[in-house]
Amino acid sequence: VSRLGPGAEFDLIRRLLDGASGHHPGVRVGPGDDAAIVIGENIAISTDMVVEDVHFRRSWLAPNEIGYHATAAALSDLAAMAARPIGVLASVAIGPGDETDFASDLMAGVIEAADAEAAILIGGDVTRSPGPLVLDIVVVGDARAPVLRSGAAAGDDVWVTGSLGAAAAAVTAWLQGREPPAAARAAFARPRPRTREALWLVERQLPTAMIDVSDGIAGDAAHLGAASGVRIVLQAAAVPVARESELALAVAGGQDYELCFTAAPGAVQRVAGEFSSRFGVPLTLVGSVEAGAGKAAGAVVVDATGEPMDLVAFQHWGRA
Amino acid sequence: VSRLGPGAEFDLIRRLLDGASGHHPGVRVGPGDDAAIVIGENIAISTDMVVEDVHFRRSWLAPNEIGYHATAAALSDLAAMAARPIGVLASVAIGPGDETDFASDLMAGVIEAADAEAAILIGGDVTRSPGPLVLDIVVVGDARAPVLRSGAAAGDDVWVTGSLGAAAAAVTAWLQGREPPAAARAAFARPRPRTREALWLVERQLPTAMIDVSDGIAGDAAHLGAASGVRIVLQAAAVPVARESELALAVAGGQDYELCFTAAPGAVQRVAGEFSSRFGVPLTLVGSVEAGAGKAAGAVVVDATGEPMDLVAFQHWGRA
Repeated sequence: VSRLGPGAEFDLIRRLLDGASGHHPGVRVGPGDDAAIVIGENIAISTDMVVEDVHFRRSWLAPNEIGYHATAAALSDLAAMAARPIGVLASVAIGPGDETDFASDLMAGVIEAADAEAAILIGGDVTRSPGPLVLDIVVVGDARAPVLRSGAAAGDDVWVTGSLGAAAAAVTAWLQGREPPAAARAAFARPRPRTREALWLVERQLPTAMIDVSDGIAGDAAHLGAASGVRIVLQAAAVPVARESELALAVAGGQDYELCFTAAPGAVQRVAGEFSSRFGVPLTLVGSVEAGAGKAAGAVVVDATGEPMDLVAFQHWGRA
Repeated sequence: VSRLGPGAEFDLIRRLLDGASGHHPGVRVGPGDDAAIVIGENIAISTDMVVEDVHFRRSWLAPNEIGYHATAAALSDLAAMAARPIGVLASVAIGPGDETDFASDLMAGVIEAADAEAAILIGGDVTRSPGPLVLDIVVVGDARAPVLRSGAAAGDDVWVTGSLGAAAAAVTAWLQGREPPAAARAAFARPRPRTREALWLVERQLPTAMIDVSDGIAGDAAHLGAASGVRIVLQAAAVPVARESELALAVAGGQDYELCFTAAPGAVQRVAGEFSSRFGVPLTLVGSVEAGAGKAAGAVVVDATGEPMDLVAFQHWGRA
């Protein structure tokens, strides 16, 4: 049970949370009780907090886009586990000047992003904030055949879906006082979690390890490498850079919400064309997995001559 | 995957989240991957957000108490469903001036409160906040035999565990510039979710509807009444008021985290003594359920003559 302050906006959001419609076979108890109840064998749960002026600025996004962005980003973690989304819980701390419309528009964006991945709103909390707007989005899914970060083996290929760097290009433009290109703006405001793509790949038992690209592929591949006790070598020249972006942003920019996964050598090549035509999303071989336990575990981006590139030079990019 | 800003404190919290030790038979994948995975038939999930200067002030609580308070409050929602706790996810937005010690002490409080209810830390997120400290605590439990808010029937008795108003007495003292009595302070800083008590009652199939008392028993009973389509009549003289408190705070103060439940008339009386001696917590008959659908559904507090009392007069109490 939440402890609310007074005010019409809270009543409204509370009604939105409690009265959210929508049915899902995995939901036994939806919003409006002390907890939601979901049904499933392996239930995957992840939580992702976004804070105004840390992850976004209000001037960049419409209220419904703030809700959409945060929810899609959180759902991307379920895709990275190959979990089928069931429900979303949204905790929202609303700033002092926020109008009722702002809050309900924000929740509409949360519900829309959930709906796009066949999930429904099953709960949440709402409170005041004396400062920034804060959203914490909890996502719940059915992970019948979860893909962990720890399964990569030396010799595996490394793949990435889609193209990278568009969202970071939008952030960079905003930070420089420019309006971003429409495609870059959309990549940031309304990311597409790769839910169906992940399930398709897992049905074919292809990924040995998987992560979503939220902090830039270099950093996220390093998490994969560390969890698997291997060294992931990414070829800079192979990284699929979004048209609106550039290599530095594609490698270290973040907020792409594509999937980076490893697979047995040669296994994915035969289905890459089918994947691309089915989902309208390229599948790109970006590197390989080498042995490398302990301190060597992680990831490195190499240039055409095989020399490791200086990632520190990329680090200032694309951080909101 | 969270998108972190730079800084040693984030690395530390991230390590705390990723490396949290602890085993639980209900946890298949713990912290450190894109999502946690829990195992169970009916998985209950609830989320509870606390914001500095809305729900607490830093001057009131030590950092580990801030974490403990928030986590115990969230776990109380699982008790209200009669769910057995499994895991906790903690999303934390840390203020600009916070030291590394502050953050790790806070997480230690989260872990301690989880441990007290036999749950383990299974995930979370950490980010900067340009303003207040914000915690969103997600609790996950196994609700084999959930008790909903909607099962109360006319004729049922209404019961409450423990005594009410102590936490609100602490808040009132702080707001008036006084140091609260030790017992009141402890009630606020380290609430005890009634997990075992709820499971014991449900084993005996006693509660027909249940809620935790987080907003004051008048308000929470009203939620029960509304969900069940009945009118709950609470006897003011029967409300168990904590020694450090008074009736107004016990009725409308909030943050008690006791359980309010309905049961068939006469059913609980025969076990109330056993309950009290087993848990060291009184079980008090505070009212009854009357028919009352539609606008009449809700709750009312009546005085010794049966006259409804004016709850608005209580409303300014105990709100942090």
